Amino acid sequence: MREAFHDQLDGIFIDLSGMCRLVEEEVREATSALLTGDAATAERVISADRAVDAAREKIEDTCFQVLSLQQPVAGDLRMLVSALRMVSEVERMGDLSVHVAKIARLRTPDVAVPLQVRPTVEQMAIVAQDMVSRVCQIISERDIEAAVELGRDDEEMDQLRRRSFAELLGDEWNHGVEAAVDIALLGRYYERIADHAVSVANRVVYTVTGELRGRRED
Amino acid sequence: MREAFHDQLDGIFIDLSGMCRLVEEEVREATSALLTGDAATAERVISADRAVDAAREKIEDTCFQVLSLQQPVAGDLRMLVSALRMVSEVERMGDLSVHVAKIARLRTPDVAVPLQVRPTVEQMAIVAQDMVSRVCQIISERDIEAAVELGRDDEEMDQLRRRSFAELLGDEWNHGVEAAVDIALLGRYYERIADHAVSVANRVVYTVTGELRGRRED
Repeated sequence: MREAFHDQLDGIFIDLSGMCRLVEEEVREATSALLTGDAATAERVISADRAVDAAREKIEDTCFQVLSLQQPVAGDLRMLVSALRMVSEVERMGDLSVHVAKIARLRTPDVAVPLQVRPTVEQMAIVAQDMVSRVCQIISERDIEAAVELGRDDEEMDQLRRRSFAELLGDEWNHGVEAAVDIALLGRYYERIADHAVSVANRVVYTVTGELRGRRED
Repeated sequence: MREAFHDQLDGIFIDLSGMCRLVEEEVREATSALLTGDAATAERVISADRAVDAAREKIEDTCFQVLSLQQPVAGDLRMLVSALRMVSEVERMGDLSVHVAKIARLRTPDVAVPLQVRPTVEQMAIVAQDMVSRVCQIISERDIEAAVELGRDDEEMDQLRRRSFAELLGDEWNHGVEAAVDIALLGRYYERIADHAVSVANRVVYTVTGELRGRRED
């Protein structure tokens, strides 16, 4: 019974990591659509989100089956409930890349991001994408050390967000209100993707060690 | 056993409704801080969020205790797992009001919302607050009809958000980039509060009927 349970649990984490890879691809493509103004890429992200939703449903169903049939207690129970919460957070990261893609689509064939803030926005996207990529790995390998490290790197996103505000609100800004609003919202979306990655990483730590790391008040 | 279980479940929903009332107060006060520029009120919201976090922890602990001790299956299991998810969403609504309060604090003693968009922002705040208030009631009474109705009212928030963008990007806008960025982010926060209220209402429907209503792709 215990062995069957742990096989099922492993299966859930493998599926969750696979779903995370779909989301990683969404984030990458959304950023590409954003920085090139390519409508077809933006559309692809928006459609791809259905596959992520389907993956979520499958994982949720499996979790409930295992919960019902195996009746886990203590640590095992917490692990399954954590998996259910992680699946929601990974799905949210996908939704947020759809939001990025929608801003790209709204401005196409123009590019929503003016050259002046492109380095900052691009760096935000790189950080977010890297965090998603690392969290996929962390899920599949339940790698505590990498998870703890991910939590630390969150600071870079905060700095980038502050830098983007300084750019938007500085005297040099001459791209008007529309672009500024786009950049502010894009910053929010990338920041939230990073927040979710950290939160998922913390849940992985928790499922392995039983210890819940401090949650960001965000 | 079954009776004890249902008493415990009722207790969880009562606590969740109580936590929701704390968040309702946070949303109300955050809006008040925003529209008056009152720093003390903004600070009060930011500090009050600790009580919401404490309420979340208490409810989560109870859920895990009940899950471990009662080993519920099928509908009862889904109800408890739903409660765990609702508690996260109610907490997020609190976090989002903290974000509103932080924008208020950033601009105090000025008011972040220019008169030109005040009617729209105020209406967004009213809709969000009303939805939170109704969802607290829906949780405590497990009122399916009210929950289904709440899902329908979400459309008003979407319209208000579109209206606010039209105002920010119209020719009449003469409040500059900073105010526009504030309004765009405030709109996002109120919209997310409303989304979470709808999502919690849908989960209440699910806990009672076993049917999960269509989730918004957002």
